Amino acid sequence: MTRMTGIKFEELRIGMFAETTNIMTEEVVVAFADVSGDRNPVHLNAEYASTTPFKERIVHGALLGAYISALVGMELPGPGSIGVSLTLKFKRPVKLGAVVTTRVEVKTLNERMAFATLTCICSVNKKTAIEGETVVYVPRQN
Amino acid sequence: MTRMTGIKFEELRIGMFAETTNIMTEEVVVAFADVSGDRNPVHLNAEYASTTPFKERIVHGALLGAYISALVGMELPGPGSIGVSLTLKFKRPVKLGAVVTTRVEVKTLNERMAFATLTCICSVNKKTAIEGETVVYVPRQN
Repeated sequence: MTRMTGIKFEELRIGMFAETTNIMTEEVVVAFADVSGDRNPVHLNAEYASTTPFKERIVHGALLGAYISALVGMELPGPGSIGVSLTLKFKRPVKLGAVVTTRVEVKTLNERMAFATLTCICSVNKKTAIEGETVVYVPRQN
Repeated sequence: MTRMTGIKFEELRIGMFAETTNIMTEEVVVAFADVSGDRNPVHLNAEYASTTPFKERIVHGALLGAYISALVGMELPGPGSIGVSLTLKFKRPVKLGAVVTTRVEVKTLNERMAFATLTCICSVNKKTAIEGETVVYVPRQN
């Protein structure tokens, strides 16, 4: 079920968080390559990837960015919120088969603008792969 | 054909750019919703979208982010480069049917670190939808 109404600005509290997990299957990586057009061989070609510093195929960083956006747009704050900015720092590569945990947490609230800043982390086995931050406009209660 | 070798750090020049265009079809938006799990109704449900400030369905911002990553990872500098960071500012919504032009351009080169900073713009009819910046490590010539 897709929520149709997100959390309103007045209901947000610093420290609120949401989490999801995603498994980096062959299917997911190929589907992301298809939809994004990103067929960089480091993501798709095991032989090529073995010649890189990563030694094996790695997942698109932008796929993990999409998981962050999904969590913000669907859960915290959810539908109605409008993205202002997203910053991603790529800390560690993520390999095929990994289980990625994506967590977003309310860090600051700007009362005047009704903006929330959330920290965004994608991790594998508790090691940070992506560290980010997003700012969203959050509708107020009517 | 996918290029297997990107541009080396010494070959990069400030002002070099690459561009692609993508059409925001129903198929693309649904495929991106499926792979990212982002089924926010503003992207998929016309009736819901008509109640939002956008009035109609809009494309996932993270999809445009993926086009930027694709261009950087496949063309400029291309395979071999390693993403360090990506920042996106969402300036205008993009509606279904739009033709999105994605352009990345080399802005600064850090000789010591072999880092390139590229400005990244997604636009529709020459109006900026996303303004971003990415930093990538670029391998040197052997």
